[in-house]
Amino acid sequence: MKTKVSLDENSKSRRTFLTNMTAAITAISLSPISSFSQSLNLPNRNAQNGKLTLGMVVFEGFELLDAFGPLQMFGILRDKVSIVIIGEKGETVKSNAGPVLKLDYTFSTAPKIDIVMIPGGIGTRREVNNEAFLTAFKALADAAPKVATICTGSAVLAKTGLLDGHKATTNKLAYAWATSQSDKVGWIPEARWVEDGKFFTSSGISAGIDMALGLIANMFGKDTAVRVANVAEYVWNDDPLNDPFAKMNGLIK
Amino acid sequence: MKTKVSLDENSKSRRTFLTNMTAAITAISLSPISSFSQSLNLPNRNAQNGKLTLGMVVFEGFELLDAFGPLQMFGILRDKVSIVIIGEKGETVKSNAGPVLKLDYTFSTAPKIDIVMIPGGIGTRREVNNEAFLTAFKALADAAPKVATICTGSAVLAKTGLLDGHKATTNKLAYAWATSQSDKVGWIPEARWVEDGKFFTSSGISAGIDMALGLIANMFGKDTAVRVANVAEYVWNDDPLNDPFAKMNGLIK
Repeated sequence: MKTKVSLDENSKSRRTFLTNMTAAITAISLSPISSFSQSLNLPNRNAQNGKLTLGMVVFEGFELLDAFGPLQMFGILRDKVSIVIIGEKGETVKSNAGPVLKLDYTFSTAPKIDIVMIPGGIGTRREVNNEAFLTAFKALADAAPKVATICTGSAVLAKTGLLDGHKATTNKLAYAWATSQSDKVGWIPEARWVEDGKFFTSSGISAGIDMALGLIANMFGKDTAVRVANVAEYVWNDDPLNDPFAKMNGLIK
Repeated sequence: MKTKVSLDENSKSRRTFLTNMTAAITAISLSPISSFSQSLNLPNRNAQNGKLTLGMVVFEGFELLDAFGPLQMFGILRDKVSIVIIGEKGETVKSNAGPVLKLDYTFSTAPKIDIVMIPGGIGTRREVNNEAFLTAFKALADAAPKVATICTGSAVLAKTGLLDGHKATTNKLAYAWATSQSDKVGWIPEARWVEDGKFFTSSGISAGIDMALGLIANMFGKDTAVRVANVAEYVWNDDPLNDPFAKMNGLIK
């Protein structure tokens, strides 16, 4: 997007613009994907285009920002990451707020995914009891080098058993329900997001944006995460322990 | 979503939960839509269900968070607002990052809209030169009681002439290009968002979330906006003049 803009820029602001472009371009050209892939031991499933594949798993009643906040941040790294939308079946999925998203793949047709993500939303109340969804999602997440959940998406991952023995967090307004999906997870009430091995879990709705930048920092370096946040004009809460909503919702004193 | 959660809540957290629910329910039950509609002189296009209609106008290459940040916030007010997705033609629209969104209406089939919104994205570079899009979008926005633009969506609205004589802002990284679409707009370089009459215009990408909460405050009261932000676990930058990205991008000293 930014390089296209330069065609339209007037000379008056060209210096400012080029400065911005340098930052943006530096952000997306850090750590070439090949060496990055090897260094993190990540399989590169799109070797032909040199990108990693991020698969967002959606379902009827997913929460919009849970999915599209993180996808915005990774979308800015389009030179490093391809985004695909995955569902259990059918061709489209309706969000909790109404907008309908087209699926790129179902669980049965999806390629191997480097970064598996799942949002929350009212639909999680159904999917934690949907054995077909849980089995297919567990297989996809188990095979992925990185797995990230947003909001009550943590409850679905917990229900698969993959979070057993791991630390994790989830939505603070639906905390009791989400954490009740597994007593084998080290649930952390006061956390914007939690990193534990390959698993990144976030608090509610907008927290997925901060977690996504944390995952970008983990994979591409903090400079890249900061530059992505700046391109999105987003003031990143980069402290995973900075979570004002745990106390607001009575989870801590 | 929250009321459903209550079915799953355990008694241990019921008191906390009910407190949260009270806040959430209070948020969405303030100012009944009928009296609200009359008080703001807003046509209620969905009288049968007592809701206002928010129409998000999308196009190939729209920026994900520009659209879905504001739709998340208004989606939490689902008792007051229905969300529809509108495009120029066809059945789907592909975002800049890849995900494909289904259209509910085209410009020619869309109902009257109470709140018209348009995101930014690389596709705006095409639409500012698309007379068919500009003419139909201008008619939709001209007839709407509220019009909000995110990021370089401001450039498209400016190109229609509807912003002539109004104050507005836009993306700070693409500021020179966006503001070059009209010299009759009072462009403000340092602003998270700008309110001028029925027009709400925001800075880049994530700024649309802060503007959307500002629009909710304008329409439903600030208490409702604060409660919506809390449900989304979002720390709202509620000061339209608090814009760190103007200086970062060299637009002010």
